[in-house]
Amino acid sequence: MKHYSKEDILCWERFYRANFINCLSGFKSASLIGTTNLDGIPNLAIFSNIVHIGADPALIGFINRPIKAAPHTISNIESTEWYTINHIHISFIEKAHQTSARYPQNDSEFEKTGLTIQWKENSKAPFVAESKIKYLMKLVEIIPIKHNASFFIIGSVEDIYIEEEIVKEDGYLQIEKAGSITSLGIDAYYETNLLSRFAYAKP
Amino acid sequence: MKHYSKEDILCWERFYRANFINCLSGFKSASLIGTTNLDGIPNLAIFSNIVHIGADPALIGFINRPIKAAPHTISNIESTEWYTINHIHISFIEKAHQTSARYPQNDSEFEKTGLTIQWKENSKAPFVAESKIKYLMKLVEIIPIKHNASFFIIGSVEDIYIEEEIVKEDGYLQIEKAGSITSLGIDAYYETNLLSRFAYAKP
Repeated sequence: MKHYSKEDILCWERFYRANFINCLSGFKSASLIGTTNLDGIPNLAIFSNIVHIGADPALIGFINRPIKAAPHTISNIESTEWYTINHIHISFIEKAHQTSARYPQNDSEFEKTGLTIQWKENSKAPFVAESKIKYLMKLVEIIPIKHNASFFIIGSVEDIYIEEEIVKEDGYLQIEKAGSITSLGIDAYYETNLLSRFAYAKP
Repeated sequence: MKHYSKEDILCWERFYRANFINCLSGFKSASLIGTTNLDGIPNLAIFSNIVHIGADPALIGFINRPIKAAPHTISNIESTEWYTINHIHISFIEKAHQTSARYPQNDSEFEKTGLTIQWKENSKAPFVAESKIKYLMKLVEIIPIKHNASFFIIGSVEDIYIEEEIVKEDGYLQIEKAGSITSLGIDAYYETNLLSRFAYAKP
């Protein structure tokens, strides 16, 4: 096996290191986060580092890069406290990836990428109409990560919209049947095939 | 589409809710975390909520459930400051899942599950010999998540061990060629197929 030390990592060319380290942590749950600013201008951006924190209360977190690199989503969430998370399906990965372009704040990524904005009754943030699994989030806490100026944003799950045939009797979601993708690194998207579900492990 | 409100989620049966909410955030990068306590007793446990925080410095984080539910890994990391993260491949998912059983602290999950312990030169935490992509981490910070008593553990990447043919010219890692899996919910494992890598998006 090839060994790379911390010193090797530090010496790598910037894009080589970004690809390598972004891939190292494994497959990710890339999704689209929808917000608005206080003037009602919608924003849509792809985020890939989303984690389950707990089911009761239902809490989900994600990493927002430093403000300079990714300013709009975090400032909208700080202002309005509401956001949506929308699964990305195979049928629109190219449009989803395109939301990562640096559009000016007054441009809506919905218009620029051709994804369809959707407002649910009483919802304070925009959804992606094409997404078959999506949920409304309310801000709980923004934790600054001081070591690299990024943020860990924690929210509570407030409303879920999902196609009924995806939900199994025991609550398990067959998200691959909706075409939900997984991502790797900064630019790769994968489809998945179920290998196995295992029973609760006992010693 | 079916709509579930926050009140619905609160009323669900506990295991139904755990399955549903754990699946909602999407595919995850399940890996095995290797540690020892101060007496040198090794521990190996599967963790699925692992996120990339940044490439320079190379920082990776993961969610540790509340102490009562998952005490050993976090206390070992607090004591020794070192841990390994090892990709799980299709060839040993059953053994990897079995590490989630509640073994007593004096039992080594390596022995109990049949995975092979591996000590690299000067490394202060044990690796999984079967894993073709693995890295040594040093603790940077443990952030308590007060809303559900879980923890966000941040570490820096110190050493990487990887089969050379997995690394592409631009630093991208073809982890699917090593058989690395992605997980969903609390008990499901998937193989993946690359759909596409996209160019850096521009407006």
